[in-house]
Amino acid sequence: MTDTGALAISLPRLRARLDALAEIGAIDGGGNARLALTDDDRRGRDLVVSWMRDLGLRIDVDEIGNVVGTWPPESTEPPVMTGSHIDTVATGGRFDGTLGVLAGIEVIETLITAGVALAHPLAVAFFTDEEGSRFAPDMLGSLVFAGGMPLEDALSIRAIDGPLIGDELLRIGYAGPQPCPARPPHAYVELHIEQGPVLEAEAVAIGAVTGVQGISWTELTITGQSNHAGTTPMSMRHDAGYAAAEVASFVRGLASEMGPPQVATVGRLELHPNLVNVVAARATLTVDLRNTSEDLVAEAERRLHAFCADLAEREGVSIASKSLARFAPVDFDDAVIALVDQVARDRGLSTMRMPSGAGHDAQMLARVCPAGMVFVPSVRGISHNPAEFTADADLEAGANVLLHVLLRLATAG
Amino acid sequence: MTDTGALAISLPRLRARLDALAEIGAIDGGGNARLALTDDDRRGRDLVVSWMRDLGLRIDVDEIGNVVGTWPPESTEPPVMTGSHIDTVATGGRFDGTLGVLAGIEVIETLITAGVALAHPLAVAFFTDEEGSRFAPDMLGSLVFAGGMPLEDALSIRAIDGPLIGDELLRIGYAGPQPCPARPPHAYVELHIEQGPVLEAEAVAIGAVTGVQGISWTELTITGQSNHAGTTPMSMRHDAGYAAAEVASFVRGLASEMGPPQVATVGRLELHPNLVNVVAARATLTVDLRNTSEDLVAEAERRLHAFCADLAEREGVSIASKSLARFAPVDFDDAVIALVDQVARDRGLSTMRMPSGAGHDAQMLARVCPAGMVFVPSVRGISHNPAEFTADADLEAGANVLLHVLLRLATAG
Repeated sequence: MTDTGALAISLPRLRARLDALAEIGAIDGGGNARLALTDDDRRGRDLVVSWMRDLGLRIDVDEIGNVVGTWPPESTEPPVMTGSHIDTVATGGRFDGTLGVLAGIEVIETLITAGVALAHPLAVAFFTDEEGSRFAPDMLGSLVFAGGMPLEDALSIRAIDGPLIGDELLRIGYAGPQPCPARPPHAYVELHIEQGPVLEAEAVAIGAVTGVQGISWTELTITGQSNHAGTTPMSMRHDAGYAAAEVASFVRGLASEMGPPQVATVGRLELHPNLVNVVAARATLTVDLRNTSEDLVAEAERRLHAFCADLAEREGVSIASKSLARFAPVDFDDAVIALVDQVARDRGLSTMRMPSGAGHDAQMLARVCPAGMVFVPSVRGISHNPAEFTADADLEAGANVLLHVLLRLATAG
Repeated sequence: MTDTGALAISLPRLRARLDALAEIGAIDGGGNARLALTDDDRRGRDLVVSWMRDLGLRIDVDEIGNVVGTWPPESTEPPVMTGSHIDTVATGGRFDGTLGVLAGIEVIETLITAGVALAHPLAVAFFTDEEGSRFAPDMLGSLVFAGGMPLEDALSIRAIDGPLIGDELLRIGYAGPQPCPARPPHAYVELHIEQGPVLEAEAVAIGAVTGVQGISWTELTITGQSNHAGTTPMSMRHDAGYAAAEVASFVRGLASEMGPPQVATVGRLELHPNLVNVVAARATLTVDLRNTSEDLVAEAERRLHAFCADLAEREGVSIASKSLARFAPVDFDDAVIALVDQVARDRGLSTMRMPSGAGHDAQMLARVCPAGMVFVPSVRGISHNPAEFTADADLEAGANVLLHVLLRLATAG
């Protein structure tokens, strides 16, 4: 019997695949632009599929273009699945998504080479259009895979550059025969870069991801009255710009008061007429609220709207509110979270449990099977940027944690 | 001897001249575009000069194009002067400036017709480029008249559309022979619409203007760090957008704490990259501070800069500050202020003493002679807008106050 505890992935092999994939759709600064279902995405898919075939995996392409490689190829049992995505944003880095897919291939290669006996098959998947940069919404392929959107609806989504998903899948040769929704996997675990600064700041190697934050995006349009900044006394103003500033200050205070993991951001703010000596007549701003608890997302929204109602009354302005996006939080499987944590500690790695602030395919899989994620540090938290970077030691540690988590799941009864 | 106390201007005559001038450079909505030294400004000047000539005034044009009509024409003594400007902003109303010039003509016509004996001559002036919309700075003609800028410097100022002031004066026939700086008048009183909402809100007919506020314009550029709005904990942010909001909230509080007449406005505010889910890396905003006291303008500036220094330290952002404009306050002559107030009350009009939040030619004349202003209400405080409006009764009341103030100044020893 193999001493599976000593098994380890090959960093050079993983790095070689990351580098080779990063040559497709390369952009200045070391990043990538492989928007979903473009020619560059097709070239990336073809390359990753060629690696899967080289390992002898069975390749299944489904009706929304998700690709699953399974070992052993003849198995029809629900697999222990890993994976992520290989599409990128227009100014993407080389680790976001690709690490999860290529580490999955590396893990399977390591286990095949070692001849480990499995109780469940293993599968590695890459899902269509995770980024949502070319087709909205994001995480589309895994959403359809998990039954969250009817296939027909998805196929008729139009790209920002015009064509339909269905037509683009046919054009690039990835309109597969496997039905959606798919049969649920036995379990799903995804390795991903954190895309935030927490692990680096805490000097922790591995994040055992507890879930994905719920997201609430609200656009506020504040209408006041344009007035001369010199001739209008403070008491007679209806200043949309001041009201917008009060909202931005309020949401910061709200997040501080509610405490982590609550975050709140006013990232977009525009004034009209936006002149030095004119009291603003109108302000448009967005509020991004996130929390791992649905109750707390809803509480943050209630408090924001109550504040706006008071503010409108106090300043004599009107505040119109529009929801731009709203997603409930997702909780990952307790056993999977604990397993990730334990496997990392057993290997002498520092760990912490943490929510994900960004969305991932794993949250869609969590609808249909026990799911979890492994995070590795992102230098300075930078992502969706060619400067996105994770050190080799962290890539290796993350892939080895993935290896042993998948091994435990695939060898347990 | 004439019973001068019963003298009153003719509202129909004043309205006819206002309407006739408003036909030159008319724009949609009832407003005017007569930018300084354009063909439309020349047509407006020619019309106003024709009215002055019809009354038998002596017309003097100076080297910067200011036009002064004097009665009696043969007098060479320093006159009691009134006036304002007839140039407008690109989207101007029909009362800003023109009221002061045409009411001045109306007052002189009234006094000539009544045959009133004067101890000092009367003059009505219109000054070049008060608005500053085509040539910076604003109030240019009166500034040069009062000796605040050398003629040569002024003549070589270039228009936003290219030509030099000196060339444009020659082109439209208003490069006159009278030297600048001019010989100071005996006194100067200007009638103007308030351009703010105070008189209307207080239901007061006449403002006895005490001076012009000092102005401080500062541009702040805040540099923080761009981060993902979902993955970056609040404690690890350097949010330029939040810092900008704190400045806007602070300046409102500063003005409230300092009390009237302090005003403070953040009218311009821009974020970068200005995206819903990205913590802003950079914010640019302007702060407009005004007060009638130079010490208080300086105090407001000091407190703003101290706040920014603390904020930068607290949030881990850098804040660069640049002065865009800085003018000291102007105090009008106590005796003129009291005279305006008294004359209005004697006529049964409600009055209040108030500073001007906007700049006016009178503040330049205040450098060389006793000066003051009469304000009449602006509906909803709207100005620099075709919707600018002052009711007939207020135009009439203001012109009659101007009449009796000028009469008192011109008949006193």
